[in-house]
Amino acid sequence: MKENQKYITKNQERFIAELMDFLSIPSVSSNEDYILGINGAAKFVQRQLIACGANIATIEKTEGHPVVYGEKMVDPSLPTVLVYGHYDVQPADPIELWDHPPFEPIIKDEKIYARGACDDKGQMFMHLKSLEYLTRTNQMCCNLKFIFEGEEEIGSPSLEKYLINNKEKLKADVVLVSDTAMIDNNTPSLIYGLKGITYFEVEVTGPEKDLHSGIHGGVIPNPLNILCTMIGKLQDENGTITIPGFYRGIVTPSDEEITALHRIPFDVEKYKKEVGVKALTGEKGYDPMERIAFRPTLDVNGIWGGYTGQGAKTVIPSKAFAKLSMRLVNGQSAKAVIRSFSNYFRTLAPDSVDVSVRVLASCESALVPIDSLPFRAAEMALEQSFGVKPVAVRIGGSIPVISLFEKVLGLHSILMGFGLDSDDIHSPNEHYGIFNFLKEIETIPLFYENYAKAFSSANPKCFLASSAM
Amino acid sequence: MKENQKYITKNQERFIAELMDFLSIPSVSSNEDYILGINGAAKFVQRQLIACGANIATIEKTEGHPVVYGEKMVDPSLPTVLVYGHYDVQPADPIELWDHPPFEPIIKDEKIYARGACDDKGQMFMHLKSLEYLTRTNQMCCNLKFIFEGEEEIGSPSLEKYLINNKEKLKADVVLVSDTAMIDNNTPSLIYGLKGITYFEVEVTGPEKDLHSGIHGGVIPNPLNILCTMIGKLQDENGTITIPGFYRGIVTPSDEEITALHRIPFDVEKYKKEVGVKALTGEKGYDPMERIAFRPTLDVNGIWGGYTGQGAKTVIPSKAFAKLSMRLVNGQSAKAVIRSFSNYFRTLAPDSVDVSVRVLASCESALVPIDSLPFRAAEMALEQSFGVKPVAVRIGGSIPVISLFEKVLGLHSILMGFGLDSDDIHSPNEHYGIFNFLKEIETIPLFYENYAKAFSSANPKCFLASSAM
Repeated sequence: MKENQKYITKNQERFIAELMDFLSIPSVSSNEDYILGINGAAKFVQRQLIACGANIATIEKTEGHPVVYGEKMVDPSLPTVLVYGHYDVQPADPIELWDHPPFEPIIKDEKIYARGACDDKGQMFMHLKSLEYLTRTNQMCCNLKFIFEGEEEIGSPSLEKYLINNKEKLKADVVLVSDTAMIDNNTPSLIYGLKGITYFEVEVTGPEKDLHSGIHGGVIPNPLNILCTMIGKLQDENGTITIPGFYRGIVTPSDEEITALHRIPFDVEKYKKEVGVKALTGEKGYDPMERIAFRPTLDVNGIWGGYTGQGAKTVIPSKAFAKLSMRLVNGQSAKAVIRSFSNYFRTLAPDSVDVSVRVLASCESALVPIDSLPFRAAEMALEQSFGVKPVAVRIGGSIPVISLFEKVLGLHSILMGFGLDSDDIHSPNEHYGIFNFLKEIETIPLFYENYAKAFSSANPKCFLASSAM
Repeated sequence: MKENQKYITKNQERFIAELMDFLSIPSVSSNEDYILGINGAAKFVQRQLIACGANIATIEKTEGHPVVYGEKMVDPSLPTVLVYGHYDVQPADPIELWDHPPFEPIIKDEKIYARGACDDKGQMFMHLKSLEYLTRTNQMCCNLKFIFEGEEEIGSPSLEKYLINNKEKLKADVVLVSDTAMIDNNTPSLIYGLKGITYFEVEVTGPEKDLHSGIHGGVIPNPLNILCTMIGKLQDENGTITIPGFYRGIVTPSDEEITALHRIPFDVEKYKKEVGVKALTGEKGYDPMERIAFRPTLDVNGIWGGYTGQGAKTVIPSKAFAKLSMRLVNGQSAKAVIRSFSNYFRTLAPDSVDVSVRVLASCESALVPIDSLPFRAAEMALEQSFGVKPVAVRIGGSIPVISLFEKVLGLHSILMGFGLDSDDIHSPNEHYGIFNFLKEIETIPLFYENYAKAFSSANPKCFLASSAM
């Protein structure tokens, strides 16, 4: 048994117990009611950084929720990896669909169940435990910097400013992020493409007050009917999004990319069963994998208005609301989509109503090069720990910071995630496999080792101090 | 000053105080949480019936909320009027838009503000006070029976069975109902046409659980997008309802009816200002008054699904819901509309989702003859108390029991209401003018007097016992 496996075996009970403590803190970032959870989680991370051997661990104010910054510098000649993660979580709604309370973690069938178990508390916490392993066994082979933010689930609104203000401090050679999924437990994956996103809240106002649908029906513009009709017009019968200019600029994937995509194992029937859906759907002209990897999408994420209680109420409400978002791909511009959607959506409304469009979050898509030293080091690390070559994939999710790291710090990111698409992140009963959790602690130090070696070969003036191994 | 006016002047403070007690009881029929309010209101009505001189006052069980029955028989040779009203009220949602708590009535600007102030507690209560006046001054000229139900706002689901089971007891010559509005305080109105209604709750299910819109977007049928698209297809760009066969059977109003309709004062600009809307809308080919009086309508009354909290949550929800209703006119069949909508709505969904359609309420439209003895007696009564001839109108609202009275008891109804369309019934800050409230007590006894006279002339074997006057 390798040394890192020994350390894991010896300490895994404690690792799991500590993660469960972390998961007990309700750090929902989108709702002000959870501010104590946000601050509690930030403090927990700071304490862990110190306990795991960081030289520096500070809670840094932003305009929103704080960033927890950590540092373990060992030798300026070694490469520096900036580890990113987020300690905030999605809301747990609808809470009534959870089998157990979302912030009272439990273990069942070799999985830890709690909001954030996988996304991203479980995955980010393992970076702390890898740090602990490396410092306690005196094996630091890279300099490490850590930023753990508290606003990822709301689109990281304060992070750009934070990165700009801390450019010097955050200097590094590459960013390492574990906030994504693998294809399955036998197919380790490295993500090289992420979608961008634009997320809106729209409001349609008809009459200035709720009205009786009998007395007033037939002449009053009903904002619910109108909002539905407007939303219905955002896609045509082929699933094509009708926003003018929406598809402009999209970079068609190369033949190699398309071939590589179709080599990834994907069992449609198994997938349908996993998510419990009768049939898949989507944009005409593309198969399901292409839609997820390469095509932009549009989803209504929430809608409300009028009477939603028990029984019947005959009302024409004053207002109707929806939250909706578009995922963007390589070549699209989030800014341009915000502009064109905001204009277009208003044109879909009749003159009898008022429409407001508010941007709740946005970020650009990201593609990272797959022929770089750190990408190859990550491939090797995954092959070493899983025993099979990993696949490189583009996914449908968005991690706003990835494009920010490139734009502000000039750094590419390695997206080495250990979750599974079946982990129900953002859903009731989110969970994270103990296998994945332990595999993560095993793999991260291997990445540092591979990367440090490759880095010193490529930079002969730097050498790997054997005393630091 | 006439005798009834004197009685009103002397007692109006008490009348108002008693109504405010009645309005303080939260008798919302659509929500089980208010069952104590329903039962409390029924008991209040029973006590009032006894206090006002009824011989019989009983709370009668139904499959749902109870009916309060009352009786004051004076002479079998006199005509018998069955007075109908309802002690249940609409939900007060959205409660945050009320200036004062909905079940803590207050008087402001000569109006009583509370849920049910006009619809229908205020209007039905005046029938009790008219009874009080007639019994205390010994002027009963008709036999009176009263049924006050507790399920009008949920479509009177138990009333048909109640009427069938109590046919003998409810024998009468005509039904008198005050649950409608006047054009304005200078234009007393008698309603001769009511719309029918079919009210549905629909549910669209995509995946069996909520999913992440990044990981799964583009291939998963999103029930929110789909529900919106389906609802958008229920009407075309001319406002025509697309349900197959929906318009079948509609009886075109006569030229006289159309002419009479356009004689009713209706100021579009004033109306727009009252309801706070930028422009009116509706079915092409009809003007606003025709749409309200003669044309069927379709309104979404509520919609919900997905994330509706603060901020952004990137979810594809499992389910989407809406409540929607159609108002029906003379000649349409509610049963046929239920059948055709339920079938049609399902055909609007793609195969990838499940759709369920549940009927929450329904009733047929009603038209009452305007050349009958009681209708003329009501016209005279309104002219006597207001000093101007009333207008006969068809309205957009539905009172399910009106068609039931005809079907089960063979009785026509006189719809002599004293509210105003601006009373905000079913809306926040519902109110009822004190002028209207007092005018109602003045007019009801005049109706009885006119009707008894006309009845005895038309039925010479009956005579009006002067002792009973």
